[in-house]
Amino acid sequence: MSQLLIKGGKCANSNCVFEADILVDDGRIVSIGENLGQSADRVIDAHGKLVLPGGVDVHVHMPWPKGDYISIDDINSGTQAAAFGGVTSIIDFAIPDDEESLESSLGKKLEEANSNSWVDYSFHLNLRGDVRKKIDEIPGLVQAGFPSFKVFMAYEGFRLDDADLLLIMDTIRQANGMMNVHSENGYLADYLTSQTVAKGDLDPRNYAFVRPAQCEIEANYRLISYIRALGTKTHIHHVGTVKGAALIAEARREGLPLSAETCPQYLLFSNEDYAGDPEKAAHLVCAPSLKSPQDRDGLWQYLADGSLPVLATDHCPYSKKQKEEHLDDFSRIPGGIGGVATRLPLIFTEGVAKGRISLERFVDMWSTQPAKIFGFYPHKGSIDIGFDADLVIFDPTAKSEIHANDLHMKTDCLPYENWEVLGLPVTTILRGEVLVEQGQLKVNEPGGKLVGRYL
Amino acid sequence: MSQLLIKGGKCANSNCVFEADILVDDGRIVSIGENLGQSADRVIDAHGKLVLPGGVDVHVHMPWPKGDYISIDDINSGTQAAAFGGVTSIIDFAIPDDEESLESSLGKKLEEANSNSWVDYSFHLNLRGDVRKKIDEIPGLVQAGFPSFKVFMAYEGFRLDDADLLLIMDTIRQANGMMNVHSENGYLADYLTSQTVAKGDLDPRNYAFVRPAQCEIEANYRLISYIRALGTKTHIHHVGTVKGAALIAEARREGLPLSAETCPQYLLFSNEDYAGDPEKAAHLVCAPSLKSPQDRDGLWQYLADGSLPVLATDHCPYSKKQKEEHLDDFSRIPGGIGGVATRLPLIFTEGVAKGRISLERFVDMWSTQPAKIFGFYPHKGSIDIGFDADLVIFDPTAKSEIHANDLHMKTDCLPYENWEVLGLPVTTILRGEVLVEQGQLKVNEPGGKLVGRYL
Amino acid sequence: MSQLLIKGGKCANSNCVFEADILVDDGRIVSIGENLGQSADRVIDAHGKLVLPGGVDVHVHMPWPKGDYISIDDINSGTQAAAFGGVTSIIDFAIPDDEESLESSLGKKLEEANSNSWVDYSFHLNLRGDVRKKIDEIPGLVQAGFPSFKVFMAYEGFRLDDADLLLIMDTIRQANGMMNVHSENGYLADYLTSQTVAKGDLDPRNYAFVRPAQCEIEANYRLISYIRALGTKTHIHHVGTVKGAALIAEARREGLPLSAETCPQYLLFSNEDYAGDPEKAAHLVCAPSLKSPQDRDGLWQYLADGSLPVLATDHCPYSKKQKEEHLDDFSRIPGGIGGVATRLPLIFTEGVAKGRISLERFVDMWSTQPAKIFGFYPHKGSIDIGFDADLVIFDPTAKSEIHANDLHMKTDCLPYENWEVLGLPVTTILRGEVLVEQGQLKVNEPGGKLVGRYL
Amino acid sequence: MSQLLIKGGKCANSNCVFEADILVDDGRIVSIGENLGQSADRVIDAHGKLVLPGGVDVHVHMPWPKGDYISIDDINSGTQAAAFGGVTSIIDFAIPDDEESLESSLGKKLEEANSNSWVDYSFHLNLRGDVRKKIDEIPGLVQAGFPSFKVFMAYEGFRLDDADLLLIMDTIRQANGMMNVHSENGYLADYLTSQTVAKGDLDPRNYAFVRPAQCEIEANYRLISYIRALGTKTHIHHVGTVKGAALIAEARREGLPLSAETCPQYLLFSNEDYAGDPEKAAHLVCAPSLKSPQDRDGLWQYLADGSLPVLATDHCPYSKKQKEEHLDDFSRIPGGIGGVATRLPLIFTEGVAKGRISLERFVDMWSTQPAKIFGFYPHKGSIDIGFDADLVIFDPTAKSEIHANDLHMKTDCLPYENWEVLGLPVTTILRGEVLVEQGQLKVNEPGGKLVGRYL
Repeated sequence: MSQLLIKGGKCANSNCVFEADILVDDGRIVSIGENLGQSADRVIDAHGKLVLPGGVDVHVHMPWPKGDYISIDDINSGTQAAAFGGVTSIIDFAIPDDEESLESSLGKKLEEANSNSWVDYSFHLNLRGDVRKKIDEIPGLVQAGFPSFKVFMAYEGFRLDDADLLLIMDTIRQANGMMNVHSENGYLADYLTSQTVAKGDLDPRNYAFVRPAQCEIEANYRLISYIRALGTKTHIHHVGTVKGAALIAEARREGLPLSAETCPQYLLFSNEDYAGDPEKAAHLVCAPSLKSPQDRDGLWQYLADGSLPVLATDHCPYSKKQKEEHLDDFSRIPGGIGGVATRLPLIFTEGVAKGRISLERFVDMWSTQPAKIFGFYPHKGSIDIGFDADLVIFDPTAKSEIHANDLHMKTDCLPYENWEVLGLPVTTILRGEVLVEQGQLKVNEPGGKLVGRYL
Repeated sequence: MSQLLIKGGKCANSNCVFEADILVDDGRIVSIGENLGQSADRVIDAHGKLVLPGGVDVHVHMPWPKGDYISIDDINSGTQAAAFGGVTSIIDFAIPDDEESLESSLGKKLEEANSNSWVDYSFHLNLRGDVRKKIDEIPGLVQAGFPSFKVFMAYEGFRLDDADLLLIMDTIRQANGMMNVHSENGYLADYLTSQTVAKGDLDPRNYAFVRPAQCEIEANYRLISYIRALGTKTHIHHVGTVKGAALIAEARREGLPLSAETCPQYLLFSNEDYAGDPEKAAHLVCAPSLKSPQDRDGLWQYLADGSLPVLATDHCPYSKKQKEEHLDDFSRIPGGIGGVATRLPLIFTEGVAKGRISLERFVDMWSTQPAKIFGFYPHKGSIDIGFDADLVIFDPTAKSEIHANDLHMKTDCLPYENWEVLGLPVTTILRGEVLVEQGQLKVNEPGGKLVGRYL
Repeated sequence: MSQLLIKGGKCANSNCVFEADILVDDGRIVSIGENLGQSADRVIDAHGKLVLPGGVDVHVHMPWPKGDYISIDDINSGTQAAAFGGVTSIIDFAIPDDEESLESSLGKKLEEANSNSWVDYSFHLNLRGDVRKKIDEIPGLVQAGFPSFKVFMAYEGFRLDDADLLLIMDTIRQANGMMNVHSENGYLADYLTSQTVAKGDLDPRNYAFVRPAQCEIEANYRLISYIRALGTKTHIHHVGTVKGAALIAEARREGLPLSAETCPQYLLFSNEDYAGDPEKAAHLVCAPSLKSPQDRDGLWQYLADGSLPVLATDHCPYSKKQKEEHLDDFSRIPGGIGGVATRLPLIFTEGVAKGRISLERFVDMWSTQPAKIFGFYPHKGSIDIGFDADLVIFDPTAKSEIHANDLHMKTDCLPYENWEVLGLPVTTILRGEVLVEQGQLKVNEPGGKLVGRYL
Repeated sequence: MSQLLIKGGKCANSNCVFEADILVDDGRIVSIGENLGQSADRVIDAHGKLVLPGGVDVHVHMPWPKGDYISIDDINSGTQAAAFGGVTSIIDFAIPDDEESLESSLGKKLEEANSNSWVDYSFHLNLRGDVRKKIDEIPGLVQAGFPSFKVFMAYEGFRLDDADLLLIMDTIRQANGMMNVHSENGYLADYLTSQTVAKGDLDPRNYAFVRPAQCEIEANYRLISYIRALGTKTHIHHVGTVKGAALIAEARREGLPLSAETCPQYLLFSNEDYAGDPEKAAHLVCAPSLKSPQDRDGLWQYLADGSLPVLATDHCPYSKKQKEEHLDDFSRIPGGIGGVATRLPLIFTEGVAKGRISLERFVDMWSTQPAKIFGFYPHKGSIDIGFDADLVIFDPTAKSEIHANDLHMKTDCLPYENWEVLGLPVTTILRGEVLVEQGQLKVNEPGGKLVGRYL
């Protein structure tokens, strides 16, 4: 197969930034060095650019399939947006019906993804419904390369009873799998929501109060207690509070097998943003909800020091029409925000360029840690010999504005609309093949592959 | 009505110890002073003795009515033991059946207690079963002088779903009542118990592991989160872990309306005591279970500084026969320990005499705080003008040994059997009437009254 | 000697509030009860009034004798102001010259106080200068009823080297005395002050930055480390930061023999008050300086829950002329605020009336705790049989305005000028003798006595 | 210059482990890849071996020059031992006399090192004596590539007054340098030592008590307070307590510019080791002293998670004769332990092989972090393009025993004598030149160079 040579870029790994050529053969990185010649089939000049490992986004919905609304990106549109955003691997979810087996649900998602994904992919298996009938499937799925099982502590219909949660945790641990969790006390969120709705306080600004920080903090504490008792490897999704992050940091120090992510929306917005323009508030409705400005600002430190090792997106876009249909009742606004395409420029701008996080640590949370934690390693997540040549060539000086319509998602609605960002992913390379270049798709067919993941 | 004069005792209140005569008229303290004369109907010489406010025990079961075994003290035997132990007020529980109203359940207990209680009494109302049908009774009961509602976070059949718990908390708050809680994560305890039983690890020493500290700590954290959200006045029963106590102390510092108790068993035994003699282990089976030696020793500091304001007993005795019937299966041993009669000598000996707590603070946790927190104030809980003359005359130098059979309980089984203690309650006075003197009952009929409690 | 009867007041002790008559004979409380008759030499009707134990102020300077300015209250004027403010006992300081013995310094103060003090008094002994020559005096002074030794961790000329501090602490512990400490890192305060002065940032608002919270917090941490190592009973003066208070609370929980006070200025003002009117800023210059609004507001909780057991004043007034002479150079403004006369109305108004602290806890910090901690107990600090009849009759409904000129201090300058307060000390009684009544001095000669203090 | 090719090793960087060939040209790494051919001047087969970046030891004394004893390694013997231990860069100290300038002191050390060091080197400048006369030298030294200044908070004669410490910190910050600190409260250590000596408790086991954990914890807290106030970049040497490490971790989370190290002795021994054989106790005398077993075990977690980013040695060996000359008086035993040669096998064995730390994190603390923090980056600390080819080829399966006499130090005394370790540094390469191979020195002359360090 053909060779690709990327010359003169500033390569950024999670430990070190160095200038070097990268030689790719048969989709894998085979040499990194000074002056590796010009003899490849294709040579890309990356002088003045950064070369980063391709992004790994472990939290996307393509689509989120339940409720009154279905989120509007499917695997084809969502992964195309991912590719334009420098992301080369994603993990979506297989979400079975109440009585449906995990395997059946996974089968459907695999079928959807087959020949439809522009980037490499895998799925988390959601445990819901009649879970006691489904737990026997867990060991086989782990062995088949699907080691991560999602559970919800919130949402009527998704939320597990703690008795079930404990049984699942123990089963996953015995199977050497891992659990990923929507860690939020749904009982409290639902009670406060129902009280607020009952009082008729329906406009979107009320959304700030019905899922208070306590919902996340309490759930984290409880979950950590269970991890301490049972030893299950666990990942917490979308951390939005400083205290919640602090509990995670302490648990990690204690040696518990716990990882966690935050997402750009929790780093860039706060619950004060629900108080202004109702349309904007509606665009920001997501669960967990945005928390205080102190939480927003304080999370950066936990992200910077690796207590929250992963940056993900919880990509779950709805159209402007869907988002704004119920401005008169916050409880009916579909919750979710698009993000798979904007993680790189937003956090490079607000994090790296503003000095809150180093470039190395950005690469770490963007690619290395998600790859290591969810079993993509040592194929994804680093610019090193033997790794898949999943790469983004990134111009750190280019300035641009974010517009939902430019980002190849299906949505026309994004809370970051008109944001000015620094840095542009100019070329996205998947296993040595140029996928996107200068804003153009360079392949004709979706070529993403299912990746078996092994912890 | 007649007058009683107690002369020359060293009176101990929660703030101060002073030598004085106490004059009682019509059951109330009307004068405290030097040389109050000799003109009363009855004069008791208390020189060389301590005079304490009568004990208030806010956590007793007379009896605990559910499960395979019924605990063996009824209100008559239990309150007689109380009187001999210097306790002049107790609060027992009305525990309705699943569909039974609170009022119905309370009615039965009031009937049982009427003319049967040797000391003053009231009841907590347990919310269990079909609670959503019962919550409308709450405001009326608060107004009727029954402001405290018990909920369980553990025990299949008693444990509330968190959705119900939140609704109850909000209802109680609106009614200006309070909630008292068995705060222990029953899901985790049940899961670990079932796993341990399934493995066949059935001897009593296994009881040390199936209700780990995490059960209490997690439940306290969760409960405190709910108090923070809803503002409900809450009391946590039988705290047995240092970390659980620390969470309570922090919540109190934060200003949350939270109180708590510990009981002598958690201060005097640890889970290491489950490891020796199986009979002794069985006698110590109670829930929450005894925790680590570090917990046992560390709780004293939280008790001393008032973070745990109340000392109660969770009096719930079973006979030796009942306790030892299932030494081959810890999960079938009835959980509970007698204690209403031994709180004073045990904690005076181990706490006051050993310098861990001051005499003033002992009075505080023994009488003043329980009276204040549960609505007996300003009638019970202090030796001050206008208060009920509920008093114990106590000889702090008398040495004796504890024997279950001497204590006027029905049980013949107590983990403190043969303990040497310092200090003897020589006289117990209820509303000015000598109830017990020199080990003899001095009244013919139970004269305890129902006390309306108002927060 | 004559008898005094106070009828019908609502007596407030630190544990309980009750309505009763109080009979005083020969300066001591001999009876408390209902309807104690009318037969005393003098009868005071206290119906509708509170009767409190007389205030004990353990931190006053009458005067502070060093530096460019001498504070302007002497023992006569200062104790007269105290009496009008409901304070019946004070502890001032004997501050020797570098080479002067403790005894010599104490002798001068005793001479000054003799026949000059309107309330009962004692002195702390300041260890400064050539302390290694003075430490041999410590055991004798403890035995003579002067058990408390003041050290400074700040102020050039007062600050002790840590090597000396450790030697002193060990000596005091061996003598069964106690140490009271100005706990503030003077090195850091001096460095920041000198840098700020060097930059020419001289106006009073700069005072907010030169003694940052770290100065107090660090010193508390260091001091607590030393207490942990050596076991010396210690009291920390004028706590002004939440974090400093939290360290004290933790140390007390750990069981270390540590007490502490805060003062009204730290509860009512913040460093934002240095930013406005320069005259007002100058009036508020004191050391430690006022801290953040969060500190000001947060201290109340530590005061309420007894982590800071004592409320004192650090009474140290200067005249308006003295305070305003160097508005052009904050570093030359004399540091100190008057307060002995205003502790009761200010904290009753802002604390009790606003629901931040209970009346019982106010009595505790105002009288009971300072008396207990500094060795006045069981003569001062409670309304109980055998105690000195040091009492304040207080009208909790009277409204008034604070004016420096009304308060019988020598200063004409107080940061509380024009504050509206609730509650007026109408009668102050010292050992059964009415000292002040309805704003009039009722005795002709200062009758305060030296009180031997024994821990 | 000549080329070196290392084939087939498993290369371990701080982010990733990968199998690759490494091509070195003119002392620098120019290519990393699969099958880089065989055309170099020298080819080393590293199949089955690990290739690590050469060790960087930022805390060595060659020798420690003060006190009754001089430690016995000079720069020649010490760096030879380093080379055998896989260490390719060290930082020693220039320690001026009281009145001596920094430059003069540095000049002497540079002269000693010139043509005498077997590995690359630099020096920290110790600020002691009449420091106010020396601070003007700081900016020039930073610019000359000596950015790190050592201060002591303990040791009579070395300890700085806090006023001087603050001035130095501010001066260093303004010069964009950094401070490295012996953070230990010398006042307390000296006081306890003098008391213990005075009591005649002289045998070595007493050493466990005279420098308690409080000494380190207090000093860390104070130092962090000063960093918070002044912003000086700071590194704390030889952390030995969990609480001290926790304070550092918190300060780093807060965003303060603070790094820290621990050393093998604090991870492998505890103060219980002072209690047995007096000779062994003497060998373990070092300052700070070894702390509790809980500290020893707990430090690993702080090391694993990067809160303590650096592993150093505090290499400071004495001969057996020197160490054992005063077994009758612990206070006269010279404090210090050899370690430059044993850091790799000890911590690989106890850390990596036992699963406490990952191989990547070991590389990080061993080379990457010390290089980054102290200004060797991007020349030392990673196997990446453009870096100096400072490499260790390491056999992770070889078993051996540690004997002081084998390690090319001058000392015959090591507390690790006879320890069994896993893993042997078989080849040490300095800037592309093989320095040590199979236990043989491969160069004739010391070829270490002074490295300018720039933060």
